[in-house]
Amino acid sequence: MSSSYFNYTNSPCAACKFLRRKCTSDCVFAPYFPPEEPTKFANVHRIFGASNVSKILQEVAPHQREDAVNSLAYEAEARLRDPVYGCVGAISVLQRQVLGLQRELEETNADIMRYASYLGGETASVYGDRRG
Amino acid sequence: MSSSYFNYTNSPCAACKFLRRKCTSDCVFAPYFPPEEPTKFANVHRIFGASNVSKILQEVAPHQREDAVNSLAYEAEARLRDPVYGCVGAISVLQRQVLGLQRELEETNADIMRYASYLGGETASVYGDRRG
Repeated sequence: MSSSYFNYTNSPCAACKFLRRKCTSDCVFAPYFPPEEPTKFANVHRIFGASNVSKILQEVAPHQREDAVNSLAYEAEARLRDPVYGCVGAISVLQRQVLGLQRELEETNADIMRYASYLGGETASVYGDRRG
Repeated sequence: MSSSYFNYTNSPCAACKFLRRKCTSDCVFAPYFPPEEPTKFANVHRIFGASNVSKILQEVAPHQREDAVNSLAYEAEARLRDPVYGCVGAISVLQRQVLGLQRELEETNADIMRYASYLGGETASVYGDRRG
């Protein structure tokens, strides 16, 4: 490792440090991969490759690049944790949770209808009693 | 394009066709990228790169490779459709949906409690009337 990696007054970004290249003022990675977060770039590089990340960054508007990098980092971390399903696993879990909650809500609404009809019946039988 | 690409009796898989290389019997891509689905490989290659896909496939057990390829294809398609958020966008939508349903369920349960306490009060006042 070259001593320039430890030049904290002008540290190369995590990407350039990882790729062992000079970090220039127009580096596409520098604003989104600070040297303090080396894992963020390492993960993204391992799953997508530096050139694909760079291509995606060029495709999106500058004000959206931070969101793009963060979503790529999220996906990369998910894929490293679960190489089979990645963040599609989280999507499946959430889809099941939505279905479960929708079913529970339907049942609770059916309970309300039963309460309402019982309350109606109770009131009717009470009035019946009082009329009889 | 070489005429071997049109050799339908022994078609190269979509990956080898795309990468213009010979598709051998031990091709890691062939079982998961049939020639009839050229877009599946093109998408995955564009977002992850062929070598990263191959690395991920080697890392997972053979019986999980189809799921791995399908989740990679899903993520790649999502990223091409939405370069900023990819399938993390779907996760955010689902998370908001879960929160909304949980809130709705809480409100419905509170309605049930109100019905139950109203029903209790109604019954008590009816008995009160009858006792009086």
